[in-house]
Amino acid sequence: MANDIEKQVADLEEKVKQLQNRQAKDQISISAYSGDLDKMLAALIIATGARAMDTEVKMFFTFWATAMLRDKNKSAKGKDFMSKMFGFMLPKGTSQLKLSKLNMYGMGTAMLKGLMKKKRVSSLEELLATAGELGVEINVCEMSMDLMGFKREEMIDYPNLHYVGVGSYLSDADESRIQLFI
Amino acid sequence: MANDIEKQVADLEEKVKQLQNRQAKDQISISAYSGDLDKMLAALIIATGARAMDTEVKMFFTFWATAMLRDKNKSAKGKDFMSKMFGFMLPKGTSQLKLSKLNMYGMGTAMLKGLMKKKRVSSLEELLATAGELGVEINVCEMSMDLMGFKREEMIDYPNLHYVGVGSYLSDADESRIQLFI
Amino acid sequence: MANDIEKQVADLEEKVKQLQNRQAKDQISISAYSGDLDKMLAALIIATGARAMDTEVKMFFTFWATAMLRDKNKSAKGKDFMSKMFGFMLPKGTSQLKLSKLNMYGMGTAMLKGLMKKKRVSSLEELLATAGELGVEINVCEMSMDLMGFKREEMIDYPNLHYVGVGSYLSDADESRIQLFI
Repeated sequence: MANDIEKQVADLEEKVKQLQNRQAKDQISISAYSGDLDKMLAALIIATGARAMDTEVKMFFTFWATAMLRDKNKSAKGKDFMSKMFGFMLPKGTSQLKLSKLNMYGMGTAMLKGLMKKKRVSSLEELLATAGELGVEINVCEMSMDLMGFKREEMIDYPNLHYVGVGSYLSDADESRIQLFI
Repeated sequence: MANDIEKQVADLEEKVKQLQNRQAKDQISISAYSGDLDKMLAALIIATGARAMDTEVKMFFTFWATAMLRDKNKSAKGKDFMSKMFGFMLPKGTSQLKLSKLNMYGMGTAMLKGLMKKKRVSSLEELLATAGELGVEINVCEMSMDLMGFKREEMIDYPNLHYVGVGSYLSDADESRIQLFI
Repeated sequence: MANDIEKQVADLEEKVKQLQNRQAKDQISISAYSGDLDKMLAALIIATGARAMDTEVKMFFTFWATAMLRDKNKSAKGKDFMSKMFGFMLPKGTSQLKLSKLNMYGMGTAMLKGLMKKKRVSSLEELLATAGELGVEINVCEMSMDLMGFKREEMIDYPNLHYVGVGSYLSDADESRIQLFI
């Protein structure tokens, strides 16, 4: 009988180890995709809010959202014509983002920015700086960089920024308790 | 040896308790963000469908989506000029929402509403009422309320509505098995 | 004492079994909703990427996204006027999708497609074929089919395609480690 119990306990230990190995971390994975001013505000408010609760935050900047990570004071050389054109059509840095709705040729966007200042809601620039201070990890989609013709030397300085593939994003998402596509 | 086994079992009990403590609930967290007619329909169809399966539902209404929770028959006093303007530009209540695509100055939206009636798909108003009856919890983002200048007295009567911060949303999301950002 | 230990172990076994029963599978649930070219590319890049990592993939095509699953060489008979009109306004097949931003009467969409070809990023058609080969499961929302007036005989041939309700989607999402709404 003692033998039986020992076997049962060893068996349980194995099962518990497997459960622990697959247990998600206190981590949130945010896929920042849209590049709209309002949605990127939402993504960064959630990201900094999660850090304030001591949750790890892995942001994956992909497609339209990568454009806002370009530094407006930097530029890159050696781009082909199409990449130059495409890059020109996209917002360069956080300050050029527009609302997903009610943009109204910029009037709605200006109104919202005015309201944010009045109500003391942090701007996108401030949120990005806070995210950096709080240790929010920013992973930039390499395929999007390549597709849009962005080069690393034109991206912002950010304390915790990496260039990754979709596999890396999926691994982060897989080990997170929360995943959002924004 | 008996002592060993006892220690092993006590150790396992501790590990299992930790796993249980971090086990997600049978709960879904839906961040209703966009305020588009079609997306809010999707959010509420998912919410009521989940309740029919006995899953707890925590909805977090934020940004554009908060506007649809205003009661068209209520109004609030003491708003400043900017808040009045912004509030005027946003849909007041469910009936004023538009499609995210094919709105075509309202024609597409009217067509879809016609199709929904014909195919006996519940309208947004009906879905919201059903959600209330089924116990879907609606949490409204306080920061969005403040930013858009909405006041509590102009919001709809709903059996299970609360005003919360982003921390509360994140806690709900963290303990949910499913999280969606719509 | 031996009796005590036996009871403790039996108790633990029950708790571990419950934890195992509710453990999420190595599976990702993607709700393909928007039907925008760029977002559907993202959804399929994530789906095929996940399969490459041996993760099960359950895609739920709903609302606007169902239109891209229509075969441009097939048609269905017996549609009423409204369904015909609505179906006509929606893209028929992958090649007619537009960008969610910068479409600019088709110029932006054409530019992106050109860039994708140049950078050897798979097209939406190729990604869908790859998804089929890799065993990505496509579940089409029956309510959306009905609402938009689509019939099964006009949908694409795909090795692993089913028609399901929202309950089925929720079950898949519930047992997945990752859920995305795109």
